This record gives sequence, structure tokens and C-alpha cells, in this order.
Amino acid sequence: MTSNAPAQDARQKLLAANAAAANALRQRFAAAGTLVVNLISSPGSGKTTLLEQTAKRLAGGHRLAAIVGDIATERDADRLRAAGLPAHQIVTGGACHLDARMIEQVLSPDAVGAERFEDLDLLFVENVGNLVCPANYDLGEQCKVVLLSVTEGGDKPFKYPGIFSKADVALITKLDLLPYVPFDVATVRAEIATLRPSGTILEVSSTTGAGLDAWCDLLTQRMAACKSITTV
Amino acid sequence: MTSNAPAQDARQKLLAANAAAANALRQRFAAAGTLVVNLISSPGSGKTTLLEQTAKRLAGGHRLAAIVGDIATERDADRLRAAGLPAHQIVTGGACHLDARMIEQVLSPDAVGAERFEDLDLLFVENVGNLVCPANYDLGEQCKVVLLSVTEGGDKPFKYPGIFSKADVALITKLDLLPYVPFDVATVRAEIATLRPSGTILEVSSTTGAGLDAWCDLLTQRMAACKSITTV
Repeated sequence: MTSNAPAQDARQKLLAANAAAANALRQRFAAAGTLVVNLISSPGSGKTTLLEQTAKRLAGGHRLAAIVGDIATERDADRLRAAGLPAHQIVTGGACHLDARMIEQVLSPDAVGAERFEDLDLLFVENVGNLVCPANYDLGEQCKVVLLSVTEGGDKPFKYPGIFSKADVALITKLDLLPYVPFDVATVRAEIATLRPSGTILEVSSTTGAGLDAWCDLLTQRMAACKSITTV
Repeated sequence: MTSNAPAQDARQKLLAANAAAANALRQRFAAAGTLVVNLISSPGSGKTTLLEQTAKRLAGGHRLAAIVGDIATERDADRLRAAGLPAHQIVTGGACHLDARMIEQVLSPDAVGAERFEDLDLLFVENVGNLVCPANYDLGEQCKVVLLSVTEGGDKPFKYPGIFSKADVALITKLDLLPYVPFDVATVRAEIATLRPSGTILEVSSTTGAGLDAWCDLLTQRMAACKSITTV
């Protein structure tokens, strides 16, 4: 629409500036050998609960931290800290996604309470709960992970193709609730694979622990790959 | 941030243009005595299923239709038509919300397959599944309704205060799944009431039918109020 052209121009410039900042971040992460994982999903798909459980399994052998984005409240960072995961909350104050500049600011030497990411094996970025907008903003991560809970319904991949085509890993979450909802895992797997043929799909439940070993193995392998690239 | 100023200016102009278009729509709806309800929630909170069940209860005595927004696919409109609710799908092709111009275009006399809204008692607008961005775009509706499913978790109102402070009605959905998830209804009700003291909160299950009579009564009362204003 013609009337939106100035807004679209401004958005294109914003995305180009974001891409440049994200590429600079990615180089810094690669040089440090830090795996950065960007978690994206609808509100309430289980991102924070997954990170709580992941921290319990991996924190012994690896140095982990998280950056958490929310429109309001420090609730998620509080939960992660209580689970032993150092966490920095970004309160966006209305913005529907994180962008690379926000990550850059958290990682600056002046940021209060920030972990030195150069010392980390794995930095999680838990994005704002939103299945749409975060897909468009590169944060310099090596890996986007999308979560889809079985309670959201199986029609979501084709309705939200942006994130499902970009995410390298798709996690089908809340598997413990499968007996109570209509959700055909095989069909959903097929739709996700259509959108991202090279992707990995895992089924997990943070409540029962099902699938979490496979998820943690995947993270461990990718951390090792990050280190090996750095040392070559 | 200074670098985002052009984008913010463009966004302010976009929102102002949207508000003008929305106000014009609201006047047309008021003149026609048509109640327009804008349904907003995360993906998978049960908007479409609620409309299917609502249509079954109300279609006998009232003229209803729906406009449905999705980033991709006609799945929701297909479901609503199968439930007997005339539905027009807006495929946004990436946009994370509906805006007033999109509604205006659907209601133009040239739009293919559009209901004449002047003949309708109630027009539902099922927004794109997104708890953030749709809250900022007035569509000329008389009433915003936010849905929060119990499976999403009780921390959502304070994490997404924009929509919970603007929505006149909050529906706590998927009540049939309450036994299987941690969700304290009393606490959630209190948080929603803090954000919107004058709002109405209902608990519903589209699966069991619980709470749907109260929901339909509320719609019937508001339809009657719309007609009475028109005839005064």
C-alpha cells in the first residue's frame, strides 16, 4: 500500500542495520567459541521451563548463561536464576522482539550484572513470546530454535511459515499433555520438515523429562563444534 | 535509540492514519447497529474453536460473520465456514497484525465474497495469533476480547500488559485442561482485574461447553445495546 511506503522504507533500513550488528556479534561469538541459541515461540510454549531443566542437566559440565526478553516484568530471569542459570533480563517496554543492538548492549563491558560471554560455552537468548516478529531479527546466533507446544494445535507450522522455515531446530513441547489434546505428531513433523528439510525435530516434555537427553546431546555436540572451529 | 528515530516517526504516522481509518469504521458500524468484536490472543489459545462453538449457539437467532487474519493459509476461514459462519480470510503475507485499512478493504462493495456488514448483528474479527502487536491497532471495533488459555501459564497478564489493559473482556480458555497444568485461576483473575478494573472475565471451555452460555449472553446483551443506540 502506497501510504505505508515511508514505514516500509524505514523498516528496511532498520533490518539492514540489524543485520550488520548481528553479523558483528556472530563474529565475536565465533572468535570466543561461544554457542548462541535464540529460542522463539508463542507465549507459554515452555521456553523458560525448558531452560530451567536444561540448566539442571548441563550446568555441571558447561558454563551457561541466558539473556531473556520480555515486554514487562523480570519474572523469567528470576526463575532462571533460581534454577542456577545466570540470567540478564531485557525489558523491552512494548517492543515485540529482541534485536541485535539490545544483545550488544547487554554484552558491553559496562552492562551491570552481565556475564563475560567470552567465558561461556553456551548463551541462550530467550526471545519475547511471539511466533511472528522475532523471526525477522537476526541476533547473531548460530542457531534458531522454535518451540511449539502440543496444546497450541498442529496447524501452526503452515500458519507461521516464517519461523518454521528459519529455525534449525524445532521442539514439540508439553508432550505430557498429548493425551488430552488433538495433535497429530506425524502430520506436524511432516509440515515442519516441508518448511525446513534440513532441520532437526525433537519431542520433549520439561515436566516428565522425556526427550531432554536428546536435546542436551544436541546442544553438547554444537558446543563442541563451536570450540573446534575456534581452535582450528 | 537515535538510529531508530526515522522508523519511530514512520510508525507514529502509521498509527495515526490507522486511528483515523478505525474511527471512520466505528461510525459506520454504529450507524448500522453492527456489534464488532476484535479477538486477540497468542497462537493456539482457541480463538477459532470458540467462534465455531459460538456460531452454533447464536447463528439461529442472529446474523453473524467473521473476518479472519492469518499470516498464511485459509485454514481458519475454512473451519468457520464449515461451522456455518460466513468468513472472509485476510492473508497478511507476513504482517503480524490486522489494521483498519485491511478491514475497510474487506468491507468495500467490491470485495469478493464479503458479507454486507450493514445486514449483520455481529461481526467477529479474529486477529493474527499474536499477544503483542494486534493490541496497538484499533480496527474500529466496539469491543476487544483477549483469550488466555490455561496451558499458557498464569504469568501472562503482567508480562503482556498492553492487551490485558485494553481488552474489555478476558476469556480464560481451555478450562478442561486445568487439572493437568499449573494455573491458579484466582491469581490470574486478580492480575487481569488490576490491569483492567472495569473489564469482564469469563472462564470457558469450547470442548466441554463450560462458560459458553455466559459468553453468548454477554454477546447478545451487547448486540442489543448496539441496536438500541442506533434506534435512539
